[in-house]
Amino acid sequence: MWRTTFLHDRLDRNAAGGVLFWLISRRLPQVEKRHGVAAMTIVFVAFANYFAMALGQGDIFFNGRTVYFARYTDWVITTPILLASLAMFAGNTLSRIATLLAALIAADVYMIVTGLVGNLSSAPYNYYWWIISMVAFLVVLGLIWGPLRQRASEDGQMAPFSKLASMLTALWVCYPIVWLVGSSGAELISVTVESWLYLVLDVTAKVGFGFVALSAARQGQS
Amino acid sequence: MWRTTFLHDRLDRNAAGGVLFWLISRRLPQVEKRHGVAAMTIVFVAFANYFAMALGQGDIFFNGRTVYFARYTDWVITTPILLASLAMFAGNTLSRIATLLAALIAADVYMIVTGLVGNLSSAPYNYYWWIISMVAFLVVLGLIWGPLRQRASEDGQMAPFSKLASMLTALWVCYPIVWLVGSSGAELISVTVESWLYLVLDVTAKVGFGFVALSAARQGQS
Amino acid sequence: MWRTTFLHDRLDRNAAGGVLFWLISRRLPQVEKRHGVAAMTIVFVAFANYFAMALGQGDIFFNGRTVYFARYTDWVITTPILLASLAMFAGNTLSRIATLLAALIAADVYMIVTGLVGNLSSAPYNYYWWIISMVAFLVVLGLIWGPLRQRASEDGQMAPFSKLASMLTALWVCYPIVWLVGSSGAELISVTVESWLYLVLDVTAKVGFGFVALSAARQGQS
Ligand SMILES: CC1=C(/C=C/C(C)=C/C=C/C(C)=C/C=O)C(C)(C)CCC1
Ligand SMILES: CC1=C(/C=C/C(C)=C/C=C/C(C)=C/C=O)C(C)(C)CCC1
Ligand SMILES: CC1=C(/C=C/C(C)=C/C=C/C(C)=C/C=O)C(C)(C)CCC1
Repeated sequence: MWRTTFLHDRLDRNAAGGVLFWLISRRLPQVEKRHGVAAMTIVFVAFANYFAMALGQGDIFFNGRTVYFARYTDWVITTPILLASLAMFAGNTLSRIATLLAALIAADVYMIVTGLVGNLSSAPYNYYWWIISMVAFLVVLGLIWGPLRQRASEDGQMAPFSKLASMLTALWVCYPIVWLVGSSGAELISVTVESWLYLVLDVTAKVGFGFVALSAARQGQS
Repeated sequence: MWRTTFLHDRLDRNAAGGVLFWLISRRLPQVEKRHGVAAMTIVFVAFANYFAMALGQGDIFFNGRTVYFARYTDWVITTPILLASLAMFAGNTLSRIATLLAALIAADVYMIVTGLVGNLSSAPYNYYWWIISMVAFLVVLGLIWGPLRQRASEDGQMAPFSKLASMLTALWVCYPIVWLVGSSGAELISVTVESWLYLVLDVTAKVGFGFVALSAARQGQS
Repeated sequence: MWRTTFLHDRLDRNAAGGVLFWLISRRLPQVEKRHGVAAMTIVFVAFANYFAMALGQGDIFFNGRTVYFARYTDWVITTPILLASLAMFAGNTLSRIATLLAALIAADVYMIVTGLVGNLSSAPYNYYWWIISMVAFLVVLGLIWGPLRQRASEDGQMAPFSKLASMLTALWVCYPIVWLVGSSGAELISVTVESWLYLVLDVTAKVGFGFVALSAARQGQS
């Protein structure tokens, strides 16, 4: 079973990540604790979803195919937090960027939910949903590199913002590609390879991103 | 199939509405962009739900009847945004009316979710749920025409507020009536007629309301 | 049927509680209305969920056992409101404690959702989920008695905060115990006894807590 190796590895990293983030958070100045809360929440949500997948409780058999819906319940909660984490670097007073953050999260949730519906659909409908999800993804990227970036530069936060936004963009663009070649799309790669790809992406996009955000926050730059 | 004509028509209007709102939003002053975000989000959420209904993915066969649950997932997201949009005219500083908005949205979500449960129930339970949903609806109306209206008048926003609140009330009262005579209630009208009625209501309550809100916002009155 | 006696009793109390809270709320100073909104929302959400259970719509037969999932949809909405209600005593300006509240609610929702997954799992998985849910519960308690308590003391709100936090802690610790000995765990008690225990806990944790919070708020201490 790929599950055993794959998911135990994932669970261990997650648990380790969570504890580490907690230790780092303790040493953050009061106002930066929110970055610690974000990073820890992400890790523990992922933990529960991977635990469910490891126990075989996070997938359903649908349209003649196994759909790992726990992946989407993970993403739909963690990606808005990641975006909020990024937005917190673009403006210290959350209220100033509240509209922007609302738009970002609306587009993001839209992207994940339409991606899930696509995964629950058989061909060719799944591709229609992929296109709709991609449009939402482009809106997310457009908001990050347009108005959010402008706010960050006004606030003199360009250095940490650019680093995090580039990292986020580079990682996130891989997801729709894996989706397209994986079991949700053209099935060009095996489920095992697909799961490993998502594993590497998830660890980097969650734990890696968390470290970079926390270290930027500790430098008092956020 | 009523689906083809009906839903393609709906999808086209929605896509057109979304693009139009985006064009209008570009010309709004910075602080009024939130009205554009609200209008666009509403249109795109409706788009996804109607798309699912058009593909036959948004309904389930339950208790011997087809239930278009995608209608409720649409409403449960879009109606709170409509109410928030209205509340933004009643007080510029969101924090000042946060309690009121929380109460409005709580009652609204309650109304939609109990309406869905009613649609999933067979007679006479569906009518019990209709009554419960109606009570929540009356609370929503009471909050709009009571405390929210008072706030709007204190802020000198009575003109745009009254126009929007009247439009909202006139349109929203039609929904429980269609529900009652339609497939979820007494089945006095056919599913085709019911769907057309909801279509006209939805376009007016979403796209029409959005236009009125955006034009009021552009006049710098919000 | 235990349902009839048990749930009608529950429904009556709830309806009465809701109306009472409304009467009390009317006499609160403007800034304290939020406590009334919280208490009323809790009562009406519980009402809908108990109504569904009374009609037999809130349970599913799963893994050879009846799972009252409406209990969890109730809790997942009402417990964050209870925590927000408590946090509102620990700092008048919500923005000052926003990070803390976000962490509290994240841990709380995590606790309820993992508890539901546990109830949907068969042994021994259900116990694994119970442990995960307990960890989240300890985080909730740690946040209440650590940083939240400190904020309350800084704000000179120790008297009402301590009363409410002690009441909450004493009541909430009973839930995981009932879960463990009830139908979701070792089945040492009958479903009827389990339901009565949850009934008494829910009435006290919702209606009782609401009264104490409202009366503290009326004394102008929050
Ligand atoms: C555009 C697109 C997708 C994008 C997914 C993304 C961007 C997921 C990111 C997840 C992260 C960052 C998780 C870690 O916390 C889907 C849903 C695959 C469906 C196809 C289209
Ligand atoms: C009172 C009531 C209802 C009210 C529905 C409303 C008011 C829906 C509004 C929808 C809108 C405005 C959508 C457009 O964005 C239901 C759920 C039919 C169920 C029966 C009782
Ligand atoms: C720790 C734990 C639990 C805690 C439940 C609690 C604390 C529920 C509180 C409910 C309230 C207060 C409702 C009233 O509004 C569960 C989910 C039983 C699962 C097992 C572990």
